[in-house]
Amino acid sequence: MTLLGFEILSHDTATSARTARLHTAHGPVETPVFMPVGTRGTVKGMTTPQLAELGAQVLLANTYHLFLRPGSEVVRDAGGLHTFMNWDRAILTDSGGFQIFSLADTLKLTDDGVEFRSILDGTRHFWTPEENMRVQQDLGADIAMQLDQCPPYPADKELVATAVRRSAEWAVRCKAVHTRPNQALFGIVQGGIFQDLRLESVARLGELDLPGYGIGGYSVGEPHELMLESLAPVAAALPTDRPRYLMGVGNPTTMLQAIGLGVDMFDCVLPTRTARMGTAFSSAGRMNLRNAQYARDFSPLDPECSCPACSQYSRAYLRHLVSSKEMLGSILLTIHNLHFLLDLTARARESIAAGTYGSFMAAWQASPASDDY
Amino acid sequence: MTLLGFEILSHDTATSARTARLHTAHGPVETPVFMPVGTRGTVKGMTTPQLAELGAQVLLANTYHLFLRPGSEVVRDAGGLHTFMNWDRAILTDSGGFQIFSLADTLKLTDDGVEFRSILDGTRHFWTPEENMRVQQDLGADIAMQLDQCPPYPADKELVATAVRRSAEWAVRCKAVHTRPNQALFGIVQGGIFQDLRLESVARLGELDLPGYGIGGYSVGEPHELMLESLAPVAAALPTDRPRYLMGVGNPTTMLQAIGLGVDMFDCVLPTRTARMGTAFSSAGRMNLRNAQYARDFSPLDPECSCPACSQYSRAYLRHLVSSKEMLGSILLTIHNLHFLLDLTARARESIAAGTYGSFMAAWQASPASDDY
Repeated sequence: MTLLGFEILSHDTATSARTARLHTAHGPVETPVFMPVGTRGTVKGMTTPQLAELGAQVLLANTYHLFLRPGSEVVRDAGGLHTFMNWDRAILTDSGGFQIFSLADTLKLTDDGVEFRSILDGTRHFWTPEENMRVQQDLGADIAMQLDQCPPYPADKELVATAVRRSAEWAVRCKAVHTRPNQALFGIVQGGIFQDLRLESVARLGELDLPGYGIGGYSVGEPHELMLESLAPVAAALPTDRPRYLMGVGNPTTMLQAIGLGVDMFDCVLPTRTARMGTAFSSAGRMNLRNAQYARDFSPLDPECSCPACSQYSRAYLRHLVSSKEMLGSILLTIHNLHFLLDLTARARESIAAGTYGSFMAAWQASPASDDY
Repeated sequence: MTLLGFEILSHDTATSARTARLHTAHGPVETPVFMPVGTRGTVKGMTTPQLAELGAQVLLANTYHLFLRPGSEVVRDAGGLHTFMNWDRAILTDSGGFQIFSLADTLKLTDDGVEFRSILDGTRHFWTPEENMRVQQDLGADIAMQLDQCPPYPADKELVATAVRRSAEWAVRCKAVHTRPNQALFGIVQGGIFQDLRLESVARLGELDLPGYGIGGYSVGEPHELMLESLAPVAAALPTDRPRYLMGVGNPTTMLQAIGLGVDMFDCVLPTRTARMGTAFSSAGRMNLRNAQYARDFSPLDPECSCPACSQYSRAYLRHLVSSKEMLGSILLTIHNLHFLLDLTARARESIAAGTYGSFMAAWQASPASDDY
């Protein structure tokens, strides 16, 4: 296992925000970073040159989905995910743990591993941490995540404690079999909203001296304030010289708040999924392009945005596409929403480097866009 | 009505094929030309910069669909179709006649006009040739087509004769009210497979001295050989100094055969619609990417093709996208299929200019790709 270089470049003065450069075999990633999600080896509706043009530095792909179809051996034989999906920048694969626990209706869970059924055809599969590592090493992303147990919210403390213990033991087993060079293995902190369990999880994973740490089990239905309250000490307890990745979070305001707590990496289907439902982020807050009020509105989607969708098309045209269920509606709103988050994190990096992240956050919180969390 | 400049550049030696330049307010169009179809003001899944990069010179949009949604007034107030859909090259709108006759379950047809119901909400609309011209002038394409009556196949000769007479009378009425500068009005030849009716239609429309002529009522289910046999004298009878546009035809072989008969323009949903069904044109004939044989085939879609889909992705990846119903599958196959026809017409133009269209056609007919007609 090759440790990724993680070079901290600057610290903000008033918050725990920092900028850093994560070195991967497929180029550097400037953090804080938002990672667009390409579930099945494609960010829905986007060509990879379009993603590069938007400034995406690293994409996420889902091990669970790619394992079921086309199969990790196919991806391996294609030369790995980078070649398969034509993306020469960095890729991170999640372990699929989250999908197993959220999608599967029946699963058998033991300390040894987890048996689950395919959502495609109902076939049974058994994943140990070792088998999961085999799959992720076949996929060949730059960053692999350990197999973990992700409890729902709300959950009994006992269940969450078991998940913390099991996930830590699985992390040990993942590390023991992970050998792929140029791929880094990240651990995943669990513990729900229980402070002591979260810190226990951090401590157990910290012993493994992994090149990075995911923070899982948030954004699963818990109240926003509770999440932030619980996240702060977790972020603070994680090693300062390793990247911290808050999994599944992509609301603009939550992301900026977490950056202030020292989080470096984010992923979420929110920008792409809401785009396909006709919804756009904007400097004036979330907009639903299905609304009749846009039928004769020939102004740009977001006058403050410089993305191709905003500079070349009107709200009336976008509404027409969305109403007509035209693919181009999903495509243009996806371009816009991804640009919105990629641009936001780029501006966050600039203000951290300038030591003014506090005032950047204050300006954001005072804007109508901050309602989006 | 401004006449489009139509400058014939070269004639082939052995066939009736010719190259020409059609001058429009949105730039020149080199013919023979294939026009991608953007039914609702968007070529499904394509951004307009992607279409420009593929070398599309002129797009077709559907008056019937845009009239129903978003409404021609919305397009007019947006500044016309070019501004609305962000396309600064040429656009042609069909009249919607074909859609009325093929989509509507109930319609009332008289010499005055046609009453039809919306496929969206069942509302009744009445189109006279004059009203149709108002709508198309609002849309503001570079080329508008007359309202015509398009009979089905097979049809009684009496019905087809009525359609020929009525379409000719409607052409007169369209011309009388068409005033938009920088928009050319084309007539449409009807007559089904009846030679005398086709020639009567050509003669009546020819009297109107229109800047171009569509050839309608083909590719509606008649046998391929019957169509070609019937098309030859029609193409020959049309004025040599005006563009000839074979409506709704886009099969590679049929297109090349029609070019040999002196046809200049084509449109068809075939490349885009079949792409969304997972089917690709290729130098080896039509390919269905759903086929299991491509699951581990890491070669390019068409090794002889230089399009972005063929140069950057494998058959296995395309099959994965198509099997997973991912938008990118439709997008990449659309890029490929459009490239295939645009490249084919570009090569046809080159060989006509070189006076070698006969041998170009012979080579095509000897290739496995020629099965596609």
